[in-house]
Amino acid sequence: MIKHIAVTTSGQGLHEFTPEVEAAVRESGIEEGLCTLFIRHTSASLLIQENADPSAKDDLERWFNRLVKENDPLYTHQTEGPDDMPGHIKAALTASTLSIPIAGGHLLLGKWQGIYLWEHRHRGGKREVVVHISG
Amino acid sequence: MIKHIAVTTSGQGLHEFTPEVEAAVRESGIEEGLCTLFIRHTSASLLIQENADPSAKDDLERWFNRLVKENDPLYTHQTEGPDDMPGHIKAALTASTLSIPIAGGHLLLGKWQGIYLWEHRHRGGKREVVVHISG
Amino acid sequence: MIKHIAVTTSGQGLHEFTPEVEAAVRESGIEEGLCTLFIRHTSASLLIQENADPSAKDDLERWFNRLVKENDPLYTHQTEGPDDMPGHIKAALTASTLSIPIAGGHLLLGKWQGIYLWEHRHRGGKREVVVHISG
Repeated sequence: MIKHIAVTTSGQGLHEFTPEVEAAVRESGIEEGLCTLFIRHTSASLLIQENADPSAKDDLERWFNRLVKENDPLYTHQTEGPDDMPGHIKAALTASTLSIPIAGGHLLLGKWQGIYLWEHRHRGGKREVVVHISG
Repeated sequence: MIKHIAVTTSGQGLHEFTPEVEAAVRESGIEEGLCTLFIRHTSASLLIQENADPSAKDDLERWFNRLVKENDPLYTHQTEGPDDMPGHIKAALTASTLSIPIAGGHLLLGKWQGIYLWEHRHRGGKREVVVHISG
Repeated sequence: MIKHIAVTTSGQGLHEFTPEVEAAVRESGIEEGLCTLFIRHTSASLLIQENADPSAKDDLERWFNRLVKENDPLYTHQTEGPDDMPGHIKAALTASTLSIPIAGGHLLLGKWQGIYLWEHRHRGGKREVVVHISG
């Protein structure tokens, strides 16, 4: 089963969409199998992270922004603004695809794990994630 | 087939568990297919790396510890100690899931490749990896 | 279906091989399913990136070479030259496996996405990627 999930972001940062993926698994009716996510963009990523404490998400964002700076004199590719090249670099350093096993009709996530879309552009937008579920 | 593998770590670093994954593939009886690994934690990762020379593993660990420092004044999330936030950042920069094709009843790993659990916490512990094998 | 694709590289950088993967999907005859790629090396990676503008690829390469330096006094593992350890670190920070859904007999890549092999060694060589396609 293939399903498209749209995640709308309003700017940089982690946007959890675990419930939408769980809903797709439920809808598939598959009890045991594999759920694979693929993001159709090169300036946003997929991430499994702790969903308990918002400060962990903030620190992650700020640490990453310090590592991958805007307006770095190294960049020649600036077509779409100062967050263009940092977005590509961040996407290269993180995941475009994730595969999570399913058992008992649920994703086998750890107790504190959530599924996030990591937006790397300031303006955000409507991001498309493809979900593939097999039994 | 879904199987749970427990990897017990005694501290930071790379812990190879290729034999445990190979055993799961053998047990499944699947000759050609795909083996997917998923780690149920956000302060440890999965990694395919060279298994020939221990110095490569040591350098990797030390390089990563220099990039992602403890006690960085940037952090606000310190609930579980100085290795808490660095663990989350390291997990974000590395893999939570891996998928390795199977042929002839064996993982199609390259000659020098091994499968590692990368522990990012000092205390280590019992880490849970879910293995999904499909034919 | 399992297929081996050889990607020959002449040195560091991003080498697109989307057409070879698309050809494997066509050959499989699978209309809806999942295509998983696995690289059998620890000094080269797989990457989904923008395929529109070559300057983005160049900036990515130069940014990464600045982050993961050659001849870093931290390294003890130098057996195969100054690009040996940087190759392992770069591989750890990027992907060894990718999974892309298939629909209508085609990879569900975004409009600007291409599939790349990222060579981390100066000399390059013949790199082996395993493609697993399931319906």
